[in-house]
Amino acid sequence: MTVWLVGAGPGDPGLITAKGLDLVRSCDALVYDVLVSPELVAEAPADALVIPREDVKQAQLNAMLVELGELGLEVVRLKGGDPFVFGRGSEEAEALLAAGVPFEVVPGVSALSAVPASAGIPITHRGVSAQVTLVSGHSASGEALDYAHLARTPGTLVVFMGLAHLAGVANGLMIAGKSPATPAAVVSRGTHADGRAVSGVLHEIAALAASLTSPALLVIGDVVTVGNRLARPLVGALEFLDGGVEGRRAG
Amino acid sequence: MTVWLVGAGPGDPGLITAKGLDLVRSCDALVYDVLVSPELVAEAPADALVIPREDVKQAQLNAMLVELGELGLEVVRLKGGDPFVFGRGSEEAEALLAAGVPFEVVPGVSALSAVPASAGIPITHRGVSAQVTLVSGHSASGEALDYAHLARTPGTLVVFMGLAHLAGVANGLMIAGKSPATPAAVVSRGTHADGRAVSGVLHEIAALAASLTSPALLVIGDVVTVGNRLARPLVGALEFLDGGVEGRRAG
Repeated sequence: MTVWLVGAGPGDPGLITAKGLDLVRSCDALVYDVLVSPELVAEAPADALVIPREDVKQAQLNAMLVELGELGLEVVRLKGGDPFVFGRGSEEAEALLAAGVPFEVVPGVSALSAVPASAGIPITHRGVSAQVTLVSGHSASGEALDYAHLARTPGTLVVFMGLAHLAGVANGLMIAGKSPATPAAVVSRGTHADGRAVSGVLHEIAALAASLTSPALLVIGDVVTVGNRLARPLVGALEFLDGGVEGRRAG
Repeated sequence: MTVWLVGAGPGDPGLITAKGLDLVRSCDALVYDVLVSPELVAEAPADALVIPREDVKQAQLNAMLVELGELGLEVVRLKGGDPFVFGRGSEEAEALLAAGVPFEVVPGVSALSAVPASAGIPITHRGVSAQVTLVSGHSASGEALDYAHLARTPGTLVVFMGLAHLAGVANGLMIAGKSPATPAAVVSRGTHADGRAVSGVLHEIAALAASLTSPALLVIGDVVTVGNRLARPLVGALEFLDGGVEGRRAG
Protein backbone atom coordinates (compact mmCIF):
# COMPACT_ATOMS: atom_id res chain seq x y z
CA MET A 1 0.00 0.00 0.00
CA THR A 2 1.26 3.42 -0.95
CA VAL A 3 -0.31 6.84 -1.31
CA TRP A 4 1.19 8.49 -4.39
CA LEU A 5 1.10 12.30 -4.38
CA VAL A 6 1.12 12.86 -8.12
CA GLY A 7 1.34 16.13 -10.04
CA ALA A 8 -1.15 16.27 -12.91
CA GLY A 9 0.67 19.14 -14.58
CA PRO A 10 -0.63 22.57 -15.56
CA GLY A 11 -3.79 21.69 -17.49
CA ASP A 12 -3.12 19.94 -20.81
CA PRO A 13 -3.61 16.24 -19.93
CA GLY A 14 -0.59 15.34 -22.10
CA LEU A 15 1.63 17.15 -19.63
CA ILE A 16 1.29 14.61 -16.84
CA THR A 17 4.48 12.59 -16.42
CA ALA A 18 4.77 9.09 -17.91
CA LYS A 19 5.19 7.72 -14.38
CA GLY A 20 2.17 9.63 -13.08
CA LEU A 21 -0.01 8.37 -15.93
CA ASP A 22 1.07 4.76 -15.28
CA LEU A 23 0.09 5.19 -11.62
CA VAL A 24 -3.34 6.63 -12.50
CA ARG A 25 -3.94 3.70 -14.89
CA SER A 26 -3.16 1.09 -12.24
CA CYS A 27 -4.50 2.61 -9.01
CA ASP A 28 -7.16 1.24 -6.66
CA ALA A 29 -8.35 4.70 -5.63
CA LEU A 30 -8.01 8.13 -7.25
CA VAL A 31 -8.57 11.33 -5.26
CA TYR A 32 -8.41 14.28 -7.63
CA ASP A 33 -8.58 18.06 -7.52
CA VAL A 34 -11.52 19.46 -9.47
CA LEU A 35 -9.17 21.50 -11.66
CA VAL A 36 -7.51 18.30 -12.93
CA SER A 37 -8.37 17.47 -16.54
CA PRO A 38 -11.32 15.03 -16.92
CA GLU A 39 -9.27 13.12 -19.52
CA LEU A 40 -6.82 12.14 -16.78
CA VAL A 41 -9.54 11.09 -14.35
CA ALA A 42 -10.96 8.90 -17.13
CA GLU A 43 -7.64 7.02 -17.28
CA ALA A 44 -8.30 5.37 -13.89
CA PRO A 45 -9.29 1.68 -14.04
CA ALA A 46 -13.05 1.11 -14.39
CA ASP A 47 -13.20 -0.56 -10.98
CA ALA A 48 -11.15 2.06 -9.16
CA LEU A 49 -12.70 4.20 -6.44
CA VAL A 50 -12.77 7.70 -7.95
CA ILE A 51 -13.23 10.61 -5.55
CA PRO A 52 -13.36 14.29 -6.51
CA ARG A 53 -12.00 16.65 -3.90
CA GLU A 54 -14.83 19.14 -3.56
CA ASP A 55 -15.89 21.18 -0.56
CA VAL A 56 -13.61 19.14 1.66
CA LYS A 57 -11.32 20.90 4.10
CA GLN A 58 -7.63 20.03 4.05
CA ALA A 59 -7.81 18.21 7.41
CA GLN A 60 -10.67 16.01 6.20
CA LEU A 61 -8.82 15.30 2.96
CA ASN A 62 -5.70 14.30 4.89
CA ALA A 63 -7.78 11.95 7.03
CA MET A 64 -9.35 10.43 3.91
CA LEU A 65 -5.93 9.74 2.37
CA VAL A 66 -4.77 8.10 5.60
CA GLU A 67 -7.90 5.91 5.71
CA LEU A 68 -7.57 4.84 2.08
CA GLY A 69 -3.90 4.04 2.64
CA GLU A 70 -4.69 2.02 5.76
CA LEU A 71 -7.15 -0.07 3.73
CA GLY A 72 -4.10 -1.33 1.88
CA LEU A 73 -5.02 0.34 -1.39
CA GLU A 74 -2.74 1.84 -4.00
CA VAL A 75 -3.97 5.41 -3.80
CA VAL A 76 -3.23 8.17 -6.30
CA ARG A 77 -3.75 11.68 -5.00
CA LEU A 78 -3.81 13.65 -8.26
CA LYS A 79 -3.07 17.34 -7.78
CA GLY A 80 -2.89 20.21 -10.26
CA GLY A 81 0.63 21.30 -11.22
CA ASP A 82 3.33 20.02 -8.89
CA PRO A 83 2.38 18.66 -5.45
CA PHE A 84 5.17 20.59 -3.71
CA VAL A 85 4.66 24.01 -5.35
CA PHE A 86 1.81 25.84 -3.58
CA GLY A 87 0.01 22.49 -3.68
CA ARG A 88 -0.24 21.70 0.02
CA GLY A 89 1.14 18.29 -0.94
CA SER A 90 3.67 18.54 1.84
CA GLU A 91 0.84 18.88 4.38
CA GLU A 92 -0.69 15.68 3.00
CA ALA A 93 2.74 14.05 3.20
CA GLU A 94 3.10 15.09 6.85
CA ALA A 95 -0.32 13.62 7.70
CA LEU A 96 0.60 10.33 6.01
CA LEU A 97 3.97 10.29 7.76
CA ALA A 98 2.34 10.88 11.14
CA ALA A 99 -0.07 7.99 10.49
CA GLY A 100 2.67 5.64 9.33
CA VAL A 101 1.18 5.32 5.84
CA PRO A 102 3.86 4.91 3.13
CA PHE A 103 3.78 7.59 0.49
CA GLU A 104 5.78 8.81 -2.49
CA VAL A 105 5.86 12.10 -4.35
CA VAL A 106 5.77 12.10 -8.15
CA PRO A 107 6.53 15.64 -9.30
CA GLY A 108 4.57 17.35 -12.02
CA VAL A 109 5.06 20.15 -14.51
CA SER A 110 4.38 23.32 -12.57
CA ALA A 111 2.31 26.15 -13.98
CA LEU A 112 5.29 28.32 -13.00
CA SER A 113 7.07 27.80 -16.32
CA ALA A 114 4.53 25.91 -18.42
CA VAL A 115 1.78 28.52 -18.29
CA PRO A 116 4.04 31.44 -19.34
CA ALA A 117 5.54 29.13 -22.02
CA SER A 118 2.06 28.52 -23.42
CA ALA A 119 2.00 32.25 -24.21
CA GLY A 120 5.54 32.20 -25.57
CA ILE A 121 7.14 33.62 -22.44
CA PRO A 122 10.35 32.03 -21.09
CA ILE A 123 10.72 32.77 -17.37
CA THR A 124 14.47 33.08 -17.89
CA HIS A 125 16.28 34.32 -20.99
CA ARG A 126 19.98 34.97 -21.38
CA GLY A 127 20.76 38.65 -21.05
CA VAL A 128 17.18 39.45 -20.02
CA SER A 129 16.45 37.57 -16.78
CA ALA A 130 18.53 35.19 -14.70
CA GLN A 131 16.29 35.20 -11.63
CA VAL A 132 12.72 34.09 -11.05
CA THR A 133 10.62 34.92 -8.01
CA LEU A 134 7.42 32.99 -7.41
CA VAL A 135 4.74 34.15 -4.99
CA SER A 136 1.09 33.41 -4.44
CA GLY A 137 -1.34 36.30 -4.66
CA HIS A 138 -4.19 34.27 -3.18
CA SER A 139 -5.24 35.77 0.11
CA ALA A 140 -5.61 32.20 1.36
CA SER A 141 -1.85 31.72 1.18
CA GLY A 142 -1.39 33.46 4.48
CA GLU A 143 1.30 36.11 4.66
CA ALA A 144 0.61 39.36 2.81
CA LEU A 145 3.07 40.03 0.02
CA ASP A 146 6.14 42.13 0.85
CA TYR A 147 5.62 44.65 -1.93
CA ALA A 148 8.53 46.85 -0.88
CA HIS A 149 10.96 43.98 -1.37
CA LEU A 150 9.25 42.54 -4.45
CA ALA A 151 9.26 45.93 -6.18
CA ARG A 152 13.07 45.98 -5.98
CA THR A 153 13.59 42.32 -6.94
CA PRO A 154 15.38 41.89 -10.27
CA GLY A 155 14.40 39.39 -12.94
CA THR A 156 11.03 37.76 -13.48
CA LEU A 157 8.16 37.85 -11.00
CA VAL A 158 5.49 35.15 -11.33
CA VAL A 159 2.31 35.45 -9.25
CA PHE A 160 -0.14 32.55 -8.86
CA MET A 161 -3.52 34.07 -8.13
CA GLY A 162 -7.18 34.47 -8.74
CA LEU A 163 -7.98 37.31 -11.12
CA ALA A 164 -9.89 39.04 -8.32
CA HIS A 165 -6.50 39.87 -6.78
CA LEU A 166 -4.84 41.14 -9.97
CA ALA A 167 -5.51 44.86 -9.56
CA GLY A 168 -4.47 44.73 -5.91
CA VAL A 169 -1.18 43.01 -6.68
CA ALA A 170 -0.36 45.37 -9.57
CA ASN A 171 -1.21 48.43 -7.47
CA GLY A 172 0.74 47.13 -4.49
CA LEU A 173 3.85 46.75 -6.63
CA MET A 174 3.48 50.21 -8.24
CA ILE A 175 2.85 51.96 -4.93
CA ALA A 176 6.02 50.29 -3.63
CA GLY A 177 7.98 51.72 -6.53
CA LYS A 178 7.80 49.20 -9.38
CA SER A 179 7.69 51.09 -12.66
CA PRO A 180 4.20 51.24 -14.20
CA ALA A 181 5.94 50.69 -17.56
CA THR A 182 7.26 47.24 -16.59
CA PRO A 183 6.16 44.62 -19.13
CA ALA A 184 3.46 42.33 -17.75
CA ALA A 185 1.26 39.51 -19.00
CA VAL A 186 -1.66 37.52 -17.66
CA VAL A 187 -2.19 33.97 -18.88
CA SER A 188 -5.58 32.46 -18.14
CA ARG A 189 -6.07 28.70 -18.24
CA GLY A 190 -2.64 28.33 -19.85
CA THR A 191 -1.97 25.01 -21.66
CA HIS A 192 -5.72 24.31 -21.67
CA ALA A 193 -7.49 24.30 -25.04
CA ASP A 194 -9.37 27.45 -24.05
CA GLY A 195 -6.35 29.30 -22.69
CA ARG A 196 -6.03 33.02 -23.35
CA ALA A 197 -3.37 35.62 -22.66
CA VAL A 198 -2.92 39.37 -22.68
CA SER A 199 0.24 41.41 -22.42
CA GLY A 200 1.01 45.06 -21.88
CA VAL A 201 2.59 47.04 -19.08
CA LEU A 202 1.98 46.90 -15.37
CA HIS A 203 -0.31 49.92 -15.00
CA GLU A 204 -2.77 48.64 -17.61
CA ILE A 205 -2.56 44.89 -17.03
CA ALA A 206 -5.61 44.64 -14.76
CA ALA A 207 -7.77 46.42 -17.34
CA LEU A 208 -6.35 44.29 -20.16
CA ALA A 209 -7.19 41.11 -18.29
CA ALA A 210 -10.73 42.16 -17.37
CA SER A 211 -12.43 39.53 -19.55
CA LEU A 212 -10.17 36.60 -18.63
CA THR A 213 -11.11 33.80 -16.26
CA SER A 214 -9.33 32.13 -13.35
CA PRO A 215 -7.06 30.32 -12.73
CA ALA A 216 -4.57 32.82 -14.03
CA LEU A 217 -0.96 33.63 -13.67
CA LEU A 218 0.69 37.05 -13.74
CA VAL A 219 4.18 37.43 -15.21
CA ILE A 220 6.09 40.68 -14.69
CA GLY A 221 9.43 41.53 -16.26
CA ASP A 222 11.32 41.96 -19.50
CA VAL A 223 10.81 38.29 -20.46
CA VAL A 224 7.31 39.35 -21.46
CA THR A 225 8.81 41.21 -24.41
CA VAL A 226 10.62 38.01 -25.45
CA GLY A 227 7.22 36.34 -25.25
CA ASN A 228 5.72 38.98 -27.49
CA ARG A 229 8.22 37.94 -30.17
CA LEU A 230 7.79 34.19 -29.65
CA ALA A 231 4.06 33.98 -28.99
CA ARG A 232 2.68 33.55 -32.48
CA PRO A 233 4.31 30.23 -33.31
CA LEU A 234 3.66 28.96 -29.81
CA VAL A 235 0.01 29.74 -29.39
CA GLY A 236 -1.24 26.29 -30.34
CA ALA A 237 -4.65 26.14 -28.76
CA LEU A 238 -3.99 29.38 -26.93
CA GLU A 239 -6.20 32.09 -28.33
CA PHE A 240 -4.68 35.53 -28.14
CA LEU A 241 -7.09 38.38 -28.01
CA ASP A 242 -6.47 40.61 -30.98
CA GLY A 243 -9.28 43.11 -30.81
CA GLY A 244 -10.23 45.67 -28.24
CA VAL A 245 -8.35 46.78 -25.19
CA GLU A 246 -7.60 43.20 -24.16
CA GLY A 247 -5.66 42.64 -27.34
CA ARG A 248 -3.19 45.47 -27.05
CA ARG A 249 0.30 44.09 -27.19
CA ALA A 250 3.35 45.66 -25.65
CA GLY A 251 5.78 44.59 -28.39
CA MET B 1 7.83 19.73 -40.20
CA THR B 2 8.14 20.95 -36.64
CA VAL B 3 10.97 21.30 -34.19
CA TRP B 4 9.68 20.29 -30.76
CA LEU B 5 11.58 21.78 -27.83
CA VAL B 6 10.85 19.09 -25.26
CA GLY B 7 11.71 19.03 -21.57
CA ALA B 8 13.10 15.64 -20.50
CA GLY B 9 12.50 16.37 -16.82
CA PRO B 10 14.96 16.37 -13.95
CA GLY B 11 16.68 12.99 -14.37
CA ASP B 12 14.41 10.02 -13.68
CA PRO B 13 13.28 8.98 -17.20
CA GLY B 14 9.75 8.36 -15.88
CA LEU B 15 9.41 12.10 -15.27
CA ILE B 16 9.23 13.08 -18.94
CA THR B 17 5.68 14.12 -19.89
CA ALA B 18 3.40 11.67 -21.70
CA LYS B 19 3.31 14.08 -24.66
CA GLY B 20 7.10 14.42 -24.69
CA LEU B 21 7.56 10.65 -24.65
CA ASP B 22 5.13 10.22 -27.55
CA LEU B 23 7.11 12.78 -29.54
CA VAL B 24 10.43 11.04 -28.84
CA ARG B 25 8.92 7.71 -29.92
CA SER B 26 7.72 9.09 -33.25
CA CYS B 27 10.41 11.59 -34.25
CA ASP B 28 12.62 11.59 -37.34
CA ALA B 29 15.53 13.23 -35.54
CA LEU B 30 16.46 13.52 -31.86
CA VAL B 31 18.99 16.10 -30.65
CA TYR B 32 19.63 15.51 -26.95
CA ASP B 33 21.61 17.04 -24.11
CA VAL B 34 24.21 14.68 -22.70
CA LEU B 35 22.64 14.90 -19.24
CA VAL B 36 19.40 13.42 -20.58
CA SER B 37 18.76 9.85 -19.42
CA PRO B 38 19.97 7.17 -21.90
CA GLU B 39 16.65 5.35 -21.38
CA LEU B 40 14.85 8.26 -23.03
CA VAL B 41 17.28 8.44 -25.95
CA ALA B 42 16.69 4.70 -26.46
CA GLU B 43 12.96 5.42 -26.97
CA ALA B 44 13.62 7.07 -30.34
CA PRO B 45 12.66 5.00 -33.40
CA ALA B 46 15.43 2.68 -34.65
CA ASP B 47 15.68 4.61 -37.91
CA ALA B 48 15.70 8.08 -36.35
CA LEU B 49 18.73 10.31 -36.64
CA VAL B 50 20.05 10.53 -33.06
CA ILE B 51 22.48 13.35 -32.28
CA PRO B 52 24.07 14.03 -28.89
CA ARG B 53 24.76 17.67 -28.15
CA GLU B 54 28.42 17.57 -27.15
CA ASP B 55 31.07 20.26 -27.55
CA VAL B 56 28.77 22.24 -29.78
CA LYS B 57 28.33 25.95 -29.17
CA GLN B 58 24.81 27.31 -28.87
CA ALA B 59 24.99 29.12 -32.23
CA GLN B 60 26.02 25.92 -34.03
CA LEU B 61 23.27 24.00 -32.27
CA ASN B 62 20.69 26.59 -33.29
CA ALA B 63 21.89 26.32 -36.90
CA MET B 64 21.65 22.52 -36.74
CA LEU B 65 18.05 22.67 -35.50
CA VAL B 66 17.15 25.08 -38.31
CA GLU B 67 18.76 22.79 -40.90
CA LEU B 68 17.00 19.68 -39.60
CA GLY B 69 13.70 21.54 -39.57
CA GLU B 70 14.24 22.81 -43.12
CA LEU B 71 14.76 19.20 -44.26
CA GLY B 72 11.11 18.70 -43.38
CA LEU B 73 11.81 16.36 -40.47
CA GLU B 74 9.90 16.02 -37.21
CA VAL B 75 12.70 17.04 -34.88
CA VAL B 76 12.73 16.57 -31.12
CA ARG B 77 15.19 18.74 -29.25
CA LEU B 78 15.31 16.97 -25.88
CA LYS B 79 16.58 19.17 -23.07
CA GLY B 80 17.14 18.49 -19.38
CA GLY B 81 14.45 19.84 -17.06
CA ASP B 82 12.20 22.44 -18.66
CA PRO B 83 13.26 24.13 -21.91
CA PHE B 84 12.30 27.61 -20.65
CA VAL B 85 13.93 27.45 -17.18
CA PHE B 86 17.66 28.20 -17.52
CA GLY B 87 17.56 25.91 -20.53
CA ARG B 88 18.36 28.37 -23.31
CA GLY B 89 15.33 26.91 -25.07
CA SER B 90 14.06 30.39 -25.78
CA GLU B 91 17.26 31.15 -27.70
CA GLU B 92 16.65 28.06 -29.82
CA ALA B 93 13.05 29.19 -30.30
CA GLU B 94 14.23 32.63 -31.45
CA ALA B 95 16.61 31.07 -33.99
CA LEU B 96 13.82 28.87 -35.37
CA LEU B 97 11.44 31.83 -35.50
CA ALA B 98 14.01 33.93 -37.38
CA ALA B 99 14.47 31.11 -39.91
CA GLY B 100 10.73 30.57 -40.34
CA VAL B 101 10.89 26.98 -39.03
CA PRO B 102 7.74 25.98 -37.12
CA PHE B 103 8.38 24.96 -33.53
CA GLU B 104 6.50 24.07 -30.37
CA VAL B 105 7.51 24.01 -26.73
CA VAL B 106 6.58 20.99 -24.61
CA PRO B 107 7.33 21.88 -20.99
CA GLY B 108 9.06 19.50 -18.64
CA VAL B 109 9.31 18.93 -14.92
CA SER B 110 11.92 21.41 -13.73
CA ALA B 111 14.63 20.45 -11.27
CA LEU B 112 13.42 23.51 -9.33
CA SER B 113 10.80 21.58 -7.39
CA ALA B 114 11.47 17.95 -8.34
CA VAL B 115 15.05 17.79 -7.11
CA PRO B 116 14.28 19.22 -3.65
CA ALA B 117 11.20 16.91 -3.53
CA SER B 118 13.45 13.91 -4.13
CA ALA B 119 15.07 14.77 -0.80
CA GLY B 120 11.71 15.37 0.88
CA ILE B 121 11.89 19.16 0.63
CA PRO B 122 8.81 21.10 -0.51
CA ILE B 123 9.84 24.49 -1.94
CA THR B 124 6.70 26.00 -0.41
CA HIS B 125 4.96 24.94 2.81
CA ARG B 126 2.08 26.66 4.52
CA GLY B 127 3.24 28.78 7.41
CA VAL B 128 6.90 28.20 6.49
CA SER B 129 7.47 29.61 3.01
CA ALA B 130 5.14 31.28 0.52
CA GLN B 131 7.85 32.60 -1.80
CA VAL B 132 10.47 30.91 -3.96
CA THR B 133 13.44 32.62 -5.59
CA LEU B 134 15.36 30.78 -8.29
CA VAL B 135 18.80 31.86 -9.46
CA SER B 136 21.67 30.25 -11.31
CA GLY B 137 25.01 30.06 -9.56
CA HIS B 138 26.83 29.03 -12.74
CA SER B 139 29.28 31.71 -13.73
CA ALA B 140 28.21 31.06 -17.34
CA SER B 141 24.79 32.53 -16.60
CA GLY B 142 26.09 36.04 -16.97
CA GLU B 143 25.18 38.52 -14.29
CA ALA B 144 26.81 38.10 -10.89
CA LEU B 145 24.33 37.35 -8.13
CA ASP B 146 22.98 40.30 -6.15
CA TYR B 147 23.89 38.90 -2.75
CA ALA B 148 22.78 42.00 -0.84
CA HIS B 149 19.24 41.62 -2.16
CA LEU B 150 19.16 37.81 -2.00
CA ALA B 151 20.30 37.83 1.63
CA ARG B 152 17.20 39.82 2.56
CA THR B 153 14.77 37.85 0.39
CA PRO B 154 12.15 35.93 2.40
CA GLY B 155 11.09 32.37 1.71
CA THR B 156 13.00 29.69 -0.16
CA LEU B 157 16.09 30.29 -2.27
CA VAL B 158 16.97 27.67 -4.89
CA VAL B 159 20.32 27.89 -6.67
CA PHE B 160 21.10 25.86 -9.80
CA MET B 161 24.86 25.44 -9.91
CA GLY B 162 27.94 23.35 -10.25
CA LEU B 163 29.34 22.27 -6.89
CA ALA B 164 32.49 24.26 -7.63
CA HIS B 165 30.46 27.41 -6.95
CA LEU B 166 28.82 26.21 -3.73
CA ALA B 167 31.28 27.71 -1.23
CA GLY B 168 31.31 31.00 -3.13
CA VAL B 169 27.53 31.28 -3.15
CA ALA B 170 27.20 30.36 0.55
CA ASN B 171 29.94 32.82 1.52
CA GLY B 172 28.47 35.56 -0.65
CA LEU B 173 25.13 35.23 1.09
CA MET B 174 26.65 35.17 4.59
CA ILE B 175 28.90 38.19 3.92
CA ALA B 176 25.78 40.03 2.73
CA GLY B 177 24.06 39.28 6.02
CA LYS B 178 22.26 35.95 5.60
CA SER B 179 22.36 34.08 8.91
CA PRO B 180 24.96 31.28 8.97
CA ALA B 181 22.35 29.27 10.89
CA THR B 182 19.84 29.28 8.01
CA PRO B 183 18.83 25.72 7.10
CA ALA B 184 20.38 24.58 3.81
CA ALA B 185 20.56 21.42 1.73
CA VAL B 186 22.40 20.27 -1.35
CA VAL B 187 20.84 17.63 -3.57
CA SER B 188 23.16 15.98 -6.07
CA ARG B 189 21.76 14.15 -9.09
CA GLY B 190 18.27 14.39 -7.56
CA THR B 191 15.65 11.96 -8.95
CA HIS B 192 18.46 9.87 -10.50
CA ALA B 193 19.02 6.39 -9.08
CA ASP B 194 22.36 7.54 -7.65
CA GLY B 195 21.08 10.80 -6.18
CA ARG B 196 22.41 11.94 -2.81
CA ALA B 197 21.59 14.78 -0.46
CA VAL B 198 23.00 16.50 2.59
CA SER B 199 21.40 19.02 4.89
CA GLY B 200 22.64 21.28 7.65
CA VAL B 201 23.00 25.02 8.01
CA LEU B 202 24.43 27.57 5.63
CA HIS B 203 27.88 27.98 7.17
CA GLU B 204 28.64 24.26 6.99
CA ILE B 205 26.84 23.29 3.80
CA ALA B 206 29.87 23.51 1.51
CA ALA B 207 31.84 21.17 3.79
CA LEU B 208 28.89 18.79 4.10
CA ALA B 209 28.58 18.58 0.33
CA ALA B 210 32.28 18.02 -0.31
CA SER B 211 31.87 14.46 -1.56
CA LEU B 212 28.83 15.06 -3.77
CA THR B 213 28.92 15.35 -7.55
CA SER B 214 27.42 17.82 -10.04
CA PRO B 215 24.81 18.63 -11.19
CA ALA B 216 23.58 19.81 -7.85
CA LEU B 217 21.02 22.16 -6.47
CA LEU B 218 21.25 24.27 -3.32
CA VAL B 219 18.12 24.93 -1.26
CA ILE B 220 18.20 27.56 1.49
CA GLY B 221 15.39 28.28 3.94
CA ASP B 222 13.16 26.82 6.60
CA VAL B 223 11.57 24.36 4.15
CA VAL B 224 14.76 22.32 4.60
CA THR B 225 13.60 21.48 8.13
CA VAL B 226 10.28 20.25 6.69
CA GLY B 227 12.39 18.10 4.37
CA ASN B 228 14.30 16.69 7.33
CA ARG B 229 10.99 15.39 8.69
CA LEU B 230 9.70 14.08 5.36
CA ALA B 231 12.90 12.71 3.86
CA ARG B 232 12.87 9.14 5.08
CA PRO B 233 9.71 7.98 3.34
CA LEU B 234 10.67 9.89 0.21
CA VAL B 235 14.20 8.74 -0.29
CA GLY B 236 13.31 6.02 -2.78
CA ALA B 237 16.44 5.65 -4.83
CA LEU B 238 17.96 8.65 -3.09
CA GLU B 239 20.74 7.57 -0.79
CA PHE B 240 21.14 9.85 2.19
CA LEU B 241 24.57 9.92 3.74
CA ASP B 242 24.31 8.84 7.33
CA GLY B 243 27.91 8.61 8.46
CA GLY B 244 30.61 11.20 8.76
CA VAL B 245 30.37 14.92 8.40
CA GLU B 246 28.30 14.64 5.23
CA GLY B 247 25.58 12.88 7.13
CA ARG B 248 24.92 15.41 9.84
CA ARG B 249 21.30 16.43 9.77
CA ALA B 250 19.98 19.77 10.87
CA GLY B 251 16.70 18.45 12.30
